[in-house]
Amino acid sequence: MDAAPAGTVAGQGITEEELRLAARNHALPLEALRHPITPAGLHYLLIHYDIPDVDPATFRLEVGGAVERPLSLSLTELRARGRVAEPITFECAGNGRALLEPRPVSQPWLTEAVGTAEWAGAALRPLLDEAGPSAGAIEVLFTGLDRGVEGGVPQWYERSLPIADAELGLLAYEMNGAPLPPQHGFPLRLVVPGWYGMQNVKWLTRITVLEEPFTGFQNAVGYRLYGADAVPGEPVTRMQPRSLMVPPGVPDFMTRERHLEPAPVTLTGRAWSGHAQIERVEVSTDGGETFAAADLDAPLGPHAWRGWRFDWDAPPGEQVLRSRATDAAGNTQPLEPPWNLKGYANNAVERIQVVAGS
Amino acid sequence: MDAAPAGTVAGQGITEEELRLAARNHALPLEALRHPITPAGLHYLLIHYDIPDVDPATFRLEVGGAVERPLSLSLTELRARGRVAEPITFECAGNGRALLEPRPVSQPWLTEAVGTAEWAGAALRPLLDEAGPSAGAIEVLFTGLDRGVEGGVPQWYERSLPIADAELGLLAYEMNGAPLPPQHGFPLRLVVPGWYGMQNVKWLTRITVLEEPFTGFQNAVGYRLYGADAVPGEPVTRMQPRSLMVPPGVPDFMTRERHLEPAPVTLTGRAWSGHAQIERVEVSTDGGETFAAADLDAPLGPHAWRGWRFDWDAPPGEQVLRSRATDAAGNTQPLEPPWNLKGYANNAVERIQVVAGS
Repeated sequence: MDAAPAGTVAGQGITEEELRLAARNHALPLEALRHPITPAGLHYLLIHYDIPDVDPATFRLEVGGAVERPLSLSLTELRARGRVAEPITFECAGNGRALLEPRPVSQPWLTEAVGTAEWAGAALRPLLDEAGPSAGAIEVLFTGLDRGVEGGVPQWYERSLPIADAELGLLAYEMNGAPLPPQHGFPLRLVVPGWYGMQNVKWLTRITVLEEPFTGFQNAVGYRLYGADAVPGEPVTRMQPRSLMVPPGVPDFMTRERHLEPAPVTLTGRAWSGHAQIERVEVSTDGGETFAAADLDAPLGPHAWRGWRFDWDAPPGEQVLRSRATDAAGNTQPLEPPWNLKGYANNAVERIQVVAGS
Repeated sequence: MDAAPAGTVAGQGITEEELRLAARNHALPLEALRHPITPAGLHYLLIHYDIPDVDPATFRLEVGGAVERPLSLSLTELRARGRVAEPITFECAGNGRALLEPRPVSQPWLTEAVGTAEWAGAALRPLLDEAGPSAGAIEVLFTGLDRGVEGGVPQWYERSLPIADAELGLLAYEMNGAPLPPQHGFPLRLVVPGWYGMQNVKWLTRITVLEEPFTGFQNAVGYRLYGADAVPGEPVTRMQPRSLMVPPGVPDFMTRERHLEPAPVTLTGRAWSGHAQIERVEVSTDGGETFAAADLDAPLGPHAWRGWRFDWDAPPGEQVLRSRATDAAGNTQPLEPPWNLKGYANNAVERIQVVAGS
């Protein structure tokens, strides 16, 4: 037994419960960072309960709560409202959790729970305008068709947003030009640019305008920054900046350590932040002792990751490569992981082990 | 420290190395068994090294070795050879590994590393006939474009097959009616009906007819049944029978335990074998004490899994559900896992924990 806070473990391997989650959910294989738009099936995936079986012919989106004119829309009616498309990056709020010590016991992400798709659908704002929120409306609640038990509470997955953030949302029915895959929310999901992935409610079926703050599980208990005292702190909202690298060379099957030639190589990767555009990426080839600026690609869009590249002449021997992002709002990745009880928003700088020559 | 054989661990959690593999590779979420053809992105995935970046415009498939007329074909030329399509089920040879004790340290699969796609492409036999194998030809070697280090050996992923089995192979360029996704072998992979997944070489670029048995890593060292003495035994070939169930009810997020109403429910699932058609599926609702026959769906095809259903009146309380497949060749799933050093072909009967009422 260890003295780690309840819900965490110290100095021991991944449990069978964590492994069950890791077998279902998956990250972006790091070499897939080469694609500016992540092919479907490679985008990270986190599903709280089960993928529901939704019949698109009878599916309806209900808009209600504190509105003047409740709406009920079929998919055909939603598609008739015009289509906006945008490359949007999002990342699981628990990304990096398994690298914390003591380790919060939940989906055991390493660093790569991220992806960028071209999401397309109906803008949410005109739909809210048509429904007519009351003068006292402050939040919008989004409810999915996925049901389960979490923290002892039976629930449909649902999350609320301040109304100003909700108005920036997209009701996405397409991912990369095709209907949503079942696991990404078919037939409809919310996508909110800049926020961690938990806000992008999949299998979205109901939108409820609220005049009081929502106190349901996923806002009040889940997705909060807790200290070791288990008191819920600030809510998890926008993505902290992070950069990841396409690991150079080739991997060892079991250790994933990289083998490369002692020769010039161009390191590439992508960086993102939910607060502002990425303004700087720096690369360290000495484990984090020193960093030097990488070249940035042109932005892919205001809410998508940004490519970077860095020329390196790999010397013989073992090295640890790291990349660090800074956004235009002045947020920079820390070298050491920020710890909290549930393991959210750990955006510590990555470590890639390589060995050149052999 | 434990006294488990080298390469295995006893009584301890998943290591960070295993977790790295589990984060990249993923299983079929069990509720996705509802789809007769697995949607892309839900099919299980096991990638030994990295997903290579292949340019389809310059890609060529080379056919050589002990043949009279070596061939070199572009994708366009391959597509011009006629297209055959078939639903084919395959499963990772290491499926079930993480349930073994002591546990072989590798990709830590639980039970669900399986999927069924409609694979389409060019039949291999006419192409081999055109090349004209020599009179002494006995095996065919398939080489992919994915490179890495495994067991200390730098290698391109490659596997050989007896020539009679190779002649049943499909050179697949489509999965579910679309070009292969990058992670499933774009632009071309081998699919061999009935075999475990390791034979379905992805990113296939070279076919070499051999007059001597291939002694490379993936045939001689990997994918063999070893005892605890670490002496390579029989090769891993065709899939043992296995059945899996769509877990009824709804899950607990963390434990994945199922919650359902104490009421009638129809249990459904799918079963497969690489040896012969599935002939019988039995279901136990008492943890394996007793089994009763399920109803079988019509076969989806000669090389695809077969659906089954079983009506159950769930009593209140906790139960363990299990399903057991038997094929027409007389192979039946064991209740207890068959152990071998690398954890292959563990087709022990599944266990699904449910609680009805609360």
